Amino acid sequence: MDRTELVDVALGHAPADLIVAGGRLVNVGSGEIYAAGVAVKGDRVAAVGDVGYTVGPDTQTLEADGRFLCPGLVEAHLHSYHSYLGVPEFAEGLLRHGVTAYADAFYGQGIVGGAEAVRFYKDAMSSMPVRLLFLVPALAYLQNRDMGLTPAPGITADEMLDMLDWPGCYGVEEPTAPPIIGKSPEWVELCRRTLEKRLVMTGHAAGLDQRTLQAYAAMGVTTDHEAVTIDEAVDRARNGFSLFMRMASSAFHQLELQRALTERGIDPQQFGFCADEASPVKLTEIGTIAHNLRTAIAAGIPAVRAIQMATLHNARAFFAQHDLGQIAPGRYADILLVDDLEAFSIHKVLVGGRTYVEDGRLVAALPVVEYPAFLYDTVKLPQPVTAADFATRADPADESVEARVIGITDGEFATVERRARLAVVDGAVQPDVEADVLPIAMVDRFLKGGAGVGTGFAHGFQLKRGAMASTVNAVSQNIVVVGTNFEDMAFATNRLAEIGGGFIVVEDEQVKALVELPLQGLMNDEPLGVVMPKFDRAYAAVRELGSPLSSPFVSLEFTFACPGIPDLKLSDEGLMRVSPPERLEVVIG
Amino acid sequence: MDRTELVDVALGHAPADLIVAGGRLVNVGSGEIYAAGVAVKGDRVAAVGDVGYTVGPDTQTLEADGRFLCPGLVEAHLHSYHSYLGVPEFAEGLLRHGVTAYADAFYGQGIVGGAEAVRFYKDAMSSMPVRLLFLVPALAYLQNRDMGLTPAPGITADEMLDMLDWPGCYGVEEPTAPPIIGKSPEWVELCRRTLEKRLVMTGHAAGLDQRTLQAYAAMGVTTDHEAVTIDEAVDRARNGFSLFMRMASSAFHQLELQRALTERGIDPQQFGFCADEASPVKLTEIGTIAHNLRTAIAAGIPAVRAIQMATLHNARAFFAQHDLGQIAPGRYADILLVDDLEAFSIHKVLVGGRTYVEDGRLVAALPVVEYPAFLYDTVKLPQPVTAADFATRADPADESVEARVIGITDGEFATVERRARLAVVDGAVQPDVEADVLPIAMVDRFLKGGAGVGTGFAHGFQLKRGAMASTVNAVSQNIVVVGTNFEDMAFATNRLAEIGGGFIVVEDEQVKALVELPLQGLMNDEPLGVVMPKFDRAYAAVRELGSPLSSPFVSLEFTFACPGIPDLKLSDEGLMRVSPPERLEVVIG
Repeated sequence: MDRTELVDVALGHAPADLIVAGGRLVNVGSGEIYAAGVAVKGDRVAAVGDVGYTVGPDTQTLEADGRFLCPGLVEAHLHSYHSYLGVPEFAEGLLRHGVTAYADAFYGQGIVGGAEAVRFYKDAMSSMPVRLLFLVPALAYLQNRDMGLTPAPGITADEMLDMLDWPGCYGVEEPTAPPIIGKSPEWVELCRRTLEKRLVMTGHAAGLDQRTLQAYAAMGVTTDHEAVTIDEAVDRARNGFSLFMRMASSAFHQLELQRALTERGIDPQQFGFCADEASPVKLTEIGTIAHNLRTAIAAGIPAVRAIQMATLHNARAFFAQHDLGQIAPGRYADILLVDDLEAFSIHKVLVGGRTYVEDGRLVAALPVVEYPAFLYDTVKLPQPVTAADFATRADPADESVEARVIGITDGEFATVERRARLAVVDGAVQPDVEADVLPIAMVDRFLKGGAGVGTGFAHGFQLKRGAMASTVNAVSQNIVVVGTNFEDMAFATNRLAEIGGGFIVVEDEQVKALVELPLQGLMNDEPLGVVMPKFDRAYAAVRELGSPLSSPFVSLEFTFACPGIPDLKLSDEGLMRVSPPERLEVVIG
Repeated sequence: MDRTELVDVALGHAPADLIVAGGRLVNVGSGEIYAAGVAVKGDRVAAVGDVGYTVGPDTQTLEADGRFLCPGLVEAHLHSYHSYLGVPEFAEGLLRHGVTAYADAFYGQGIVGGAEAVRFYKDAMSSMPVRLLFLVPALAYLQNRDMGLTPAPGITADEMLDMLDWPGCYGVEEPTAPPIIGKSPEWVELCRRTLEKRLVMTGHAAGLDQRTLQAYAAMGVTTDHEAVTIDEAVDRARNGFSLFMRMASSAFHQLELQRALTERGIDPQQFGFCADEASPVKLTEIGTIAHNLRTAIAAGIPAVRAIQMATLHNARAFFAQHDLGQIAPGRYADILLVDDLEAFSIHKVLVGGRTYVEDGRLVAALPVVEYPAFLYDTVKLPQPVTAADFATRADPADESVEARVIGITDGEFATVERRARLAVVDGAVQPDVEADVLPIAMVDRFLKGGAGVGTGFAHGFQLKRGAMASTVNAVSQNIVVVGTNFEDMAFATNRLAEIGGGFIVVEDEQVKALVELPLQGLMNDEPLGVVMPKFDRAYAAVRELGSPLSSPFVSLEFTFACPGIPDLKLSDEGLMRVSPPERLEVVIG
């Protein structure tokens, strides 16, 4: 729609399509709440305040009945593929909880399917009633390249540069610090071109020390979402970053970070919110930014300030404030009718002036997405794996060995190094299920041509029986598996390859639960009503096997190599430390 | 300089060129003040904090001795031509008072000299140690076109579009509301292209009613500097504008506007500062943004918040926060050493790590500017004017007439309509010096081919003898003159045409004071030491003639037609009202 049509409505020369009447406007620009209506023309706001003069004979009226009118929430950093849901189902999850705009690069999709897949998902998501802040998927090029691991085909450096010119591109998504400060020509050029085009270098500053953080900022990176401590939050603000405080499915860092505001008195104007990753349950039942917002309010941050962080601050970090983040003339008519500001209970969600959600239910159909054939059948093994492939080897003469074990913590992406003494049988290092030291493996699913299976051990899963496996894991998107025995691990792996990917829970070489993720091994293609019970069943099955983890598949995923997230990780090429990258042996004596 | 060199310094792999040691950092990102040093490489900041590790054998050290380290001030809206100074002299004025970056479109230069002049001044200013936020000079195209007046050649609509692609272009400078909401194709296209290129539509929302303001915002305009009342300040924030509160030479609106923050509790995060126009005395002796800043602090706004408004907020409005507005890695090393934060007394001004100002004096030479010939000899009359040309005509049979008189107020650009009964002699309406109703005139200096002289009367100048004239006046850049008698007015006009423009003060057809402005009739080309005494002499001469106005040449300028500034104004085509544009007769009976 042409903005000039808004002019006619604002001036009273033409009627609005819709007015939202009788609301209490949460004005994030002025920081006030006051009685106001909103006049909408096409998909944008034409006027705010006393908008009775914009009513014509065909103008629709939506009575707000004294409810609060809040801008649609702007999610600053979220990976759609990480919801494991199809495009309309993901959009529905966002909309149900008031998120009407979000930033995504589709990097997972790009690792598996290249630029063609990124383009497909960009277009498909753009067809949804959610504003996409498209970013260049740096991780689809980077993968674990800077850690010395062989990447999947993914995308090329030239394709990253091309994507800067794609319509609706807002910048580059979270290249980690090593490539950005590593001065290789393709990254220097990407940074230069991004800033030259007035796009945003979004960051991923996990665990960076002060010097590295400053080097990263020096290259023009202006956002981060990976801070985990109060001190890191303060450092982000001090060094010129917009900090998107994270509340993911299994990483609740905002709880700590917001204390920089409430306890240290840091200026909140450069702070915003993100989820980063949201399980299907979080996405559809709890919400992403709405949850951040409630978390902030619960910590004593005033509601209007929290809403600013959820809207204007995030929009401004992307230089999108003329389109998003405030209910004001010229902005998209993405409006939430909220019953209670403190509880942030959302009555209605309007996108472009149309009501899509009412009391948590979708009330308008989302566009249908037809997925092309190239997105299917993408999980490839040279041949089926066997139980023996999952055994870490030791000297057959040894009865036991000291082993490095990846220590996981519920609610953290970061892992630590632990140690265990493990029995050796015929040269194969054995699990110690009682001590919760379980074999894990990453299996190449791109036919990259190496050994194909990296093996090791993890502590923290607490499975007592069986195995679980997945084809979703940040930047690798290989098959990852943890189990109590090698046979179940092989069974789970082979089954996932057969069906093109998914989540699987196995016991005694029987499928206990399965969520098919046929789209690139990353996402389901079924409606929420079909797929959500499958997730429930899978989570329940993991619990039945003994694991109390809140998001077991996410914990599994981040047990494996992922750039910028410390410390001890497994890859399809073996055990390693992340920073600085270092290959390690599992068996140390 | 390549940002990668900063990386080496930040990481401790290469020495800094300079460290500023022992300062108290005003961190506008976090809102804190704490002890810190700054490491500089090339012209940017590499690291902040404990930067001792960046010192090598050749690293220079500047001891801050406990002084506050503030970011260089960012002036959001200022017209260089309005200082009447040459390029280095203007830059010196900015630097002396801590302004290290400013936004300018060179629209006055463009009206007189077209795109060629805009390009020249853009390049010349870019050679100075001041960051230029170049904007497209919408007013050099618009002029008084939408008021129905014949424009000077200026620039074309196509040239405006071309300028969006000039390197270092940040957006479009202050097109007024009528063209923007008037839907003519060239303005619709300019708005569309500007937003598409992620550039900023800066605004000029003077006197707009609520509906017009909203229509203006709807077109994508996101800044304003023309608010004058508290209510207007609140409305700007509510409607999604960044508001640059103005403290000009003769318009002190911030005094009122900041009460929106101190008394109404409006969120300050979308508020910033500007001067808009600064007389040579204001520019060099008082300062622009530093004066806004002190004004805010004096009103009770905390110093750190005021400094944020002077730096980060302004930079962010232009999406320049990765380059400007904070002392943080990657930003230009534009740093102020401040003795006292409340008084904002500036000890040193560093630009790109180099000290340019110390205790108010320039201590490093600025580049020399060679002005091309086309900038000279630009004030053209078809023939010398005569006293009779300045007489407003009435029916010779009348002895007196009721006349519309332009009422001016010291410190305001806006004018009002007043009335006076004036004697008529031989059909010429006479001045009433005793009642302070003085003849004024605008004389076309572009040989546009019309009548060439518009005449009328003004109240408020309080001249008792003689006349004063100028070739500087917003968007017209014609000759403007006010006097107590027609003879002195003709003499002043002819003399300005002979010398190519300037300010002149005349008594009894003798020059009392003259400031030559040979560059396009807008600017002087002499060093400050030569030109400043001429300004002093001119201001003194005006006072000697009886006028107590604080900035008499600015008051004179805004007595004449200027888009968007109400209300009764004179043009070279006669008297008019601004909004909506309406031609009026001086004599009403």
